[in-house]
Amino acid sequence: MNSIGRLFRVSIFGESHGPAVGIIIDGCPPGLDIKTDDFTEDLQRRKSGRPGTTPRIEDDIPLIKSGVFNDKSTGAPIMIEFLNNNARSRDYESIKNIPRPGHADFTAFKKFNGYNDYRGGGHFSGRLTLPLVAAGVIAKKVINPVTIQSEIIEAGGLQDIEAALKIASEKQDSIGGIIECRAVNIPVGWGEPFFDSVESLLSHIIFSIPAIKGIEFGKGFESAGMFGSIMNDEIINADGMTKTNNSGGINGGLTNGNDLVFRVAVKPASSISLEQFSIDMKTNQKVNLKIEGRHDLCIALRVPPVIEAVTAIVLADLKLIFESYN
Amino acid sequence: MNSIGRLFRVSIFGESHGPAVGIIIDGCPPGLDIKTDDFTEDLQRRKSGRPGTTPRIEDDIPLIKSGVFNDKSTGAPIMIEFLNNNARSRDYESIKNIPRPGHADFTAFKKFNGYNDYRGGGHFSGRLTLPLVAAGVIAKKVINPVTIQSEIIEAGGLQDIEAALKIASEKQDSIGGIIECRAVNIPVGWGEPFFDSVESLLSHIIFSIPAIKGIEFGKGFESAGMFGSIMNDEIINADGMTKTNNSGGINGGLTNGNDLVFRVAVKPASSISLEQFSIDMKTNQKVNLKIEGRHDLCIALRVPPVIEAVTAIVLADLKLIFESYN
Amino acid sequence: MNSIGRLFRVSIFGESHGPAVGIIIDGCPPGLDIKTDDFTEDLQRRKSGRPGTTPRIEDDIPLIKSGVFNDKSTGAPIMIEFLNNNARSRDYESIKNIPRPGHADFTAFKKFNGYNDYRGGGHFSGRLTLPLVAAGVIAKKVINPVTIQSEIIEAGGLQDIEAALKIASEKQDSIGGIIECRAVNIPVGWGEPFFDSVESLLSHIIFSIPAIKGIEFGKGFESAGMFGSIMNDEIINADGMTKTNNSGGINGGLTNGNDLVFRVAVKPASSISLEQFSIDMKTNQKVNLKIEGRHDLCIALRVPPVIEAVTAIVLADLKLIFESYN
Amino acid sequence: MNSIGRLFRVSIFGESHGPAVGIIIDGCPPGLDIKTDDFTEDLQRRKSGRPGTTPRIEDDIPLIKSGVFNDKSTGAPIMIEFLNNNARSRDYESIKNIPRPGHADFTAFKKFNGYNDYRGGGHFSGRLTLPLVAAGVIAKKVINPVTIQSEIIEAGGLQDIEAALKIASEKQDSIGGIIECRAVNIPVGWGEPFFDSVESLLSHIIFSIPAIKGIEFGKGFESAGMFGSIMNDEIINADGMTKTNNSGGINGGLTNGNDLVFRVAVKPASSISLEQFSIDMKTNQKVNLKIEGRHDLCIALRVPPVIEAVTAIVLADLKLIFESYN
Repeated sequence: MNSIGRLFRVSIFGESHGPAVGIIIDGCPPGLDIKTDDFTEDLQRRKSGRPGTTPRIEDDIPLIKSGVFNDKSTGAPIMIEFLNNNARSRDYESIKNIPRPGHADFTAFKKFNGYNDYRGGGHFSGRLTLPLVAAGVIAKKVINPVTIQSEIIEAGGLQDIEAALKIASEKQDSIGGIIECRAVNIPVGWGEPFFDSVESLLSHIIFSIPAIKGIEFGKGFESAGMFGSIMNDEIINADGMTKTNNSGGINGGLTNGNDLVFRVAVKPASSISLEQFSIDMKTNQKVNLKIEGRHDLCIALRVPPVIEAVTAIVLADLKLIFESYN
Repeated sequence: MNSIGRLFRVSIFGESHGPAVGIIIDGCPPGLDIKTDDFTEDLQRRKSGRPGTTPRIEDDIPLIKSGVFNDKSTGAPIMIEFLNNNARSRDYESIKNIPRPGHADFTAFKKFNGYNDYRGGGHFSGRLTLPLVAAGVIAKKVINPVTIQSEIIEAGGLQDIEAALKIASEKQDSIGGIIECRAVNIPVGWGEPFFDSVESLLSHIIFSIPAIKGIEFGKGFESAGMFGSIMNDEIINADGMTKTNNSGGINGGLTNGNDLVFRVAVKPASSISLEQFSIDMKTNQKVNLKIEGRHDLCIALRVPPVIEAVTAIVLADLKLIFESYN
Repeated sequence: MNSIGRLFRVSIFGESHGPAVGIIIDGCPPGLDIKTDDFTEDLQRRKSGRPGTTPRIEDDIPLIKSGVFNDKSTGAPIMIEFLNNNARSRDYESIKNIPRPGHADFTAFKKFNGYNDYRGGGHFSGRLTLPLVAAGVIAKKVINPVTIQSEIIEAGGLQDIEAALKIASEKQDSIGGIIECRAVNIPVGWGEPFFDSVESLLSHIIFSIPAIKGIEFGKGFESAGMFGSIMNDEIINADGMTKTNNSGGINGGLTNGNDLVFRVAVKPASSISLEQFSIDMKTNQKVNLKIEGRHDLCIALRVPPVIEAVTAIVLADLKLIFESYN
Repeated sequence: MNSIGRLFRVSIFGESHGPAVGIIIDGCPPGLDIKTDDFTEDLQRRKSGRPGTTPRIEDDIPLIKSGVFNDKSTGAPIMIEFLNNNARSRDYESIKNIPRPGHADFTAFKKFNGYNDYRGGGHFSGRLTLPLVAAGVIAKKVINPVTIQSEIIEAGGLQDIEAALKIASEKQDSIGGIIECRAVNIPVGWGEPFFDSVESLLSHIIFSIPAIKGIEFGKGFESAGMFGSIMNDEIINADGMTKTNNSGGINGGLTNGNDLVFRVAVKPASSISLEQFSIDMKTNQKVNLKIEGRHDLCIALRVPPVIEAVTAIVLADLKLIFESYN
């Protein structure tokens, strides 16, 4: 489903090469300052055109269609739309029946009985992260003074990211990366028992971002090789501050007052310049495939503001739920 | 929230030391064979008492209170309850105000203003995985002929799990582990676009299981260090079979017809025999803490049937959704 | 689905002649006093055995299986179960293939491909209102100081209800009735825009009660024949008090601070002693049908506490949502 | 919340005097024919400008922003937007602090702490029914061959609707009306047990339409005065056909294969030309209020296509759910 959240809820729509992408933000408390300029910074961070990212240039101007009046949220649903101005659909006609490896072309074709909009991945496109980032800007206002920061800490297996990009560029290949995200100032007790643990809700929304293949909280996979005596974080005061933060700020699915920390694995972009093989779905013949245009060397570079945005969306929801009886 | 699912939906209840734990399974199609014996195998696999696991012995007999008539599901909600017969609550009185490191004691106390049932972790207990396994037994019937198999592939950083347990036992410490899960025979196209991707739904429910700290699909974190040309799975026939399965059977959040494969990281059990430190929440004084009783050396040993169960629950839901227009 | 609510959420299970009926109440704030005795009054009001109601005698003792510790709600899901001790299933074998007019026998048989538990209507039984009333007892505590009162104002078309029962008894027939419900002390602004209007949420849950055929708020159907100048309630102070209350305490789907008032129509019980006709689903032959036993003359008599309960459930949810940002 | 539905799900946004109103339709099966012209008839039926309705003239052209490709639904969310071109916001400045009787002005102001968009009722405007009708056009395609027809059967208490309008016009007052809706060709078994009964889901969405004050199914309120022997519909064949249709096509919350029939009460429009009284929320003084402009004599005239639309939305959802295991 294209909606998520319980009190602070978003619903997404749009395709890469359709007229627009956008989002409805429902349940936003009234009285928040919301101006078009507020979106600029995060949208720029996500934008293409930097080294390692693709040159499809879009204006990415957020059109606020509802829910804001006199620069304040009204309490009614906020719809934000972005027009697609720079889509060149003819690029994709040739591969209509030839699913690109790593993309959703094949699965979407099968699921939707061939009616899916295949142009640029259609609804299964990274362009859908644009409205997510816009919703995140609003969510960040809701959770203030909680702040979130996310950055790429590794690309192509290297911590020197410039070097990694150079290698990828030389090989005309793409590389993945690892993003670390940290949220600070969260009170104790956000999150809900069992199915709506903080990890559950965050991982749910994060795996909706294209290209994410893994997530870990605190020590994550490393904890599987640790002793309990080392892994356990010693609580050192009545506010719950811990000596270490191996748990990543969560116990029993609830925030514990320490920094919320997690990492996500981003796979290399599926679109590459190198020749690949696929199948023609009509003829069942093996075919050579060369994806034209310039491609993202490392999509992970554009993911940090998206991770921040979806984290803010989840935390906004949890904050509102938390405050319902506190 | 203690419920999850859209068409096949479960709602959980109970505490470690309350009268019972249980689950309602709503949306189960009518006409499935359901007998008490069907639950035995998976419940036994999860049960304590094996090497490396704790000696709290419970009968774990599933009491089917509704939704089954003449050994068939009726279409009405199925409630399955397990009585808690062997809980010794006095064990916990002494630590009422002293949160155990790594547990939800502190966060639950704060979230619920001190009214949480602290005995044995209360609602935040591994015992809640018992009804999950029971629901999984039914979910497995719904998704037949899809089958799921999950096993521990590493404990305490070692692939020789016996050796790992020996070390933990000698050190009186606990160790974590890694579980791999594989589901086969899934058709192409299960999963929903964007927020209800297969990874989103699986990670959501899996992080509700206590002690899970990470999840990765296919090559997962390794993919972050790979080139796109290697990571991309070549499609080799019109059914979507791929040469490799680096994606773990999912593209664009939808199953692609190959095996669904993922791994989860289980942290070491938080309860250990070794002395630890904590804080007395009443006095704000640092205190020594020794958790009495025998403890799980490696809770990860008990997690595979739980992972299978929740995977089945998600897949049952996705199957029903998929069939709504197919 | 057998669940309802967003923050205060209930999930129901059970059949008329199964082992038990019950309910999970999820999202109940911690710290509420909850004792078994608290349920007695409302359960008694609903109970059978009074003039005009059936003689199936059950103890109706609420078994609290989770979520309450030391007589206080813990914040975890509260499960309340009622055993079915007095069900005589053999009464129903003879009519297995003969759907009783007015009941769900035929529709449930078709929907569930013949696997439904047909005994006493199975899951489609008035007995399921028992756990609803129990949940309502807790919901009433959540919304305190809001109070709800509901009463029968008409039976069989008469305001003299004793007289109506006498006629029904003489004719060995059943009669319907009209219930009026009033909730007082509700602040301004409960309810959510558009789909979660107060009327939407109340009517949703009220039509889940068996035998309800209509609902109207304030002047209801009468308003369709009124002039706007008469219907409009004049606001007479800044708290929103109105001169009249034709709207029933709701404007734009939100409570307006005046009494919430609505009425529901309850049809006559479908089970009557008189001979009726039906069809044998196996043979497609017309058959005579006489439903044995003594029957409710007027089930509407038992409905007021059920209406109160479900109203409290909805209001508890709306209160928690309202307080999330107020 | 501004969303409704489980598999076929709509999310609404917009204000009367904002830039646009619109709707996302999520879960629409792929492959349906969807052309702009398909919307014309129902949008025209809803449109203003006919006798008895207001003269705000809008083009009401549906802009399909996503989810449709080559005139077919793709399976991705369909967003349909309508621009507001003819809103004159200055009309409302004078009454910013003076809530109009019968409108949501007061309740919205209080709920949203004064940040609500008060112009023309903002989000609480009948204009929001426009995107609902558009979604209904698509829902009607989903449920084909089920068809729905709804008409006004009474206005101002009279069955002669022309006469009723004449009286209202002479008095410069508004009148309410009663709409009857009938859906045919529905198979047996749509609807879900308990909380998602057909009546529950229909009443839920119908009460989200502004001005609705009551709903009744089949004999509705009249059934409260009937005997069971008369009310019960005799089943006359194995397909479930009944001799009478007092139940309105529903038993136990499930469709029974006969026509689904219900009626709704529409109150008179709250905006009238006659002088009224209200309170100035700033000064707490009683004030005279005259609402300028020409007003709807009988908004009920515009309601039938809206009722059809929301009925279709609910039935589309129930059809998809029904087919998930049938």
